[in-house]
Amino acid sequence: MSPLPIRLHVPGPTPLPDAVREAGARQMVNHRGPEFKALLGRVTAGLGRAFRTHDTILVLSSSGTGGLEAAVVNHLSPGDPVLAVTIGAFGDRFAKIATTYGADVTRLAMEWGRAAEAGDVAAAAREMAARGRAPAAVLLTHNETSTGVTNPVAELAAAARTVVPDVLVIVDAISGLGAVPFETDAWGVDVVVTGSQKSWMVPPGLAMVSVSERAWAAAERATMPRFYFDLAAHRKSAATGETPWTPAVGVCFALDVAIALLEAEGYEAIFARHRACGAAARAGLRALGFTLFADPAHASDTVTAAYVPDGLEWSALNGALKARGLILAGGQGKLAGHILRLGHLGAVTVNDVLAALAIIEDALIALGLPPGERGAALVEAVRAADASAQVPAGSAV
Amino acid sequence: MSPLPIRLHVPGPTPLPDAVREAGARQMVNHRGPEFKALLGRVTAGLGRAFRTHDTILVLSSSGTGGLEAAVVNHLSPGDPVLAVTIGAFGDRFAKIATTYGADVTRLAMEWGRAAEAGDVAAAAREMAARGRAPAAVLLTHNETSTGVTNPVAELAAAARTVVPDVLVIVDAISGLGAVPFETDAWGVDVVVTGSQKSWMVPPGLAMVSVSERAWAAAERATMPRFYFDLAAHRKSAATGETPWTPAVGVCFALDVAIALLEAEGYEAIFARHRACGAAARAGLRALGFTLFADPAHASDTVTAAYVPDGLEWSALNGALKARGLILAGGQGKLAGHILRLGHLGAVTVNDVLAALAIIEDALIALGLPPGERGAALVEAVRAADASAQVPAGSAV
Repeated sequence: MSPLPIRLHVPGPTPLPDAVREAGARQMVNHRGPEFKALLGRVTAGLGRAFRTHDTILVLSSSGTGGLEAAVVNHLSPGDPVLAVTIGAFGDRFAKIATTYGADVTRLAMEWGRAAEAGDVAAAAREMAARGRAPAAVLLTHNETSTGVTNPVAELAAAARTVVPDVLVIVDAISGLGAVPFETDAWGVDVVVTGSQKSWMVPPGLAMVSVSERAWAAAERATMPRFYFDLAAHRKSAATGETPWTPAVGVCFALDVAIALLEAEGYEAIFARHRACGAAARAGLRALGFTLFADPAHASDTVTAAYVPDGLEWSALNGALKARGLILAGGQGKLAGHILRLGHLGAVTVNDVLAALAIIEDALIALGLPPGERGAALVEAVRAADASAQVPAGSAV
Repeated sequence: MSPLPIRLHVPGPTPLPDAVREAGARQMVNHRGPEFKALLGRVTAGLGRAFRTHDTILVLSSSGTGGLEAAVVNHLSPGDPVLAVTIGAFGDRFAKIATTYGADVTRLAMEWGRAAEAGDVAAAAREMAARGRAPAAVLLTHNETSTGVTNPVAELAAAARTVVPDVLVIVDAISGLGAVPFETDAWGVDVVVTGSQKSWMVPPGLAMVSVSERAWAAAERATMPRFYFDLAAHRKSAATGETPWTPAVGVCFALDVAIALLEAEGYEAIFARHRACGAAARAGLRALGFTLFADPAHASDTVTAAYVPDGLEWSALNGALKARGLILAGGQGKLAGHILRLGHLGAVTVNDVLAALAIIEDALIALGLPPGERGAALVEAVRAADASAQVPAGSAV
């Protein structure tokens, strides 16, 4: 192990603040005692404020993918028509979960790198309705981690509802919620899933889910089998401050501390910080000669994907970055070897993005691909970060 | 919060050694990088030694109940005849999981407090076979946490196999494995499930599962739906040192350290320590005037259940114990209010049991039910612990 700092910039797990790390070292408590009950109450209240919802909040001990499974199996029955809007690997995974449990899935797949469009969602729902298979649910990805694209969830949900007013809108918000704006109630989203190791600055191990009244009503009719992920069992236990199965207590300790840190900073400030990080990452990578992967109009403020430069192998570039302490992610599925992904979510500032860009520049020089005037990308990045504060929230820079 | 030490004696989560706590405070790493890959290799190898098996070992990010669900849904199809042997609340849960996913479950339910008997298991399997429904699998509980009873798994597995030689034997070993003898290969157990927060001295968040070749063959035919708990996906990822979904990295750090601690002590010494703790708990509680709940011939060495004394409410007794820093568990299901459960598994010594007994004695005196000569129960307990070293492993004291 090198004594030099490791800069973890994968799109989750994200770096832990010291206070969160220290919470992970606490001694165990009885998960059916008063201390844990109080913690669960604080955590679910705090998550409700972050989700911007009055819906039920449940904490599951699993990765985000387990939360996605819960979001499918509790609200649908085998044979139910489902519109799965996919813009990348995680959208594909969501669709596959629904297929696995017997839903009749119609996929609306966008070219990777692009966001979904409201018109396409409405057209797909209309086409399903026309053949007597109006969707019972639409599955959306908020922030597609594999491509670095953020979907306009409010517009997509509204588009689906113009065709099927009571359609369940189920959203994978794993890698965006808490870092960029998300309005569960105002957008009418029925089920929202996030994961502890993303913007929450917490180790992986928890999926957090919100469930609307409409979704609870659907759960009473839904016949897909579920046990570990049975949300009704979770709701029943939550009423007495417990979880039905032993929760990941240490990760709950960490989440409790992290929510206090997030609220101390304030979500508007957090969104501005991620906006600045996203702007800096995109401007800096472009200035280093990278071609960005995502449609600029919908580029994510939590993860930036860029093509591996011509003439470089991903493994060589990644090796040079790792040797300098920078840990990035490569491409997933068909993008493996073709793109790199720089995560900038959670406990990350523009300064961290600048350090990552400096390391990337240094690696390119070492690999014989000097990216132009030394340090110029840092200037571009910091200027873009400054400029991001001048535009309205939600606009891409 | 009191400055005095809290003595956590529920049957999981168990107390964490300092080195394990500190591992839980480590900074995150890339879960798809070389550091995590090395960790997963060490952990699965160590678990194989503890499970006493050459079968595949997989690490799932869930509670033990998630591991039980995995053990069912990967190896069975809806309609498959299953013999569920239940001796308490966790056996009932295991049966319910199988029922939920559509298995044709025949329950062999023992009176709570008793172990299952080989003859009854063979008779039940024979009865099923006689009506053309020979069991595809038998579900067994190794150590029933709700009643404090340890089943003779070797005998029960052998009994089922005398009737159906290739029956899958699937065992919930959550609260016993690692603390009392268990021989996965020698006993021919196909699927074994344990959980991190029990004898492993680790926070909750991981289920660890072993899968035999026979069980993998069954998995290829099994049609119960699964995604998050799809063990084939876990096996495929494990081949490259990864997990299919983001693992609970912090809990994995803790498990890695804990396995090193367990191996430094040695499993024979660990088994002897739990035997001594069990003997001390039973002798001490009896000397304090408690009636033990479990059949003495099959009393668990990881958790002891005893009736709440006549004339006392559980809530009053529990309040007096908590005020003195002792955290016990009450009864589950129909036993709620009627029994208490003293956990003595994981990082626990006879000295901890003695301290718990001293607190219980003190509470009884305070509640006006003095249990006889002051301190006499401690003498009985420490003598029983000494005597436990004189009897062969596996014999109840």
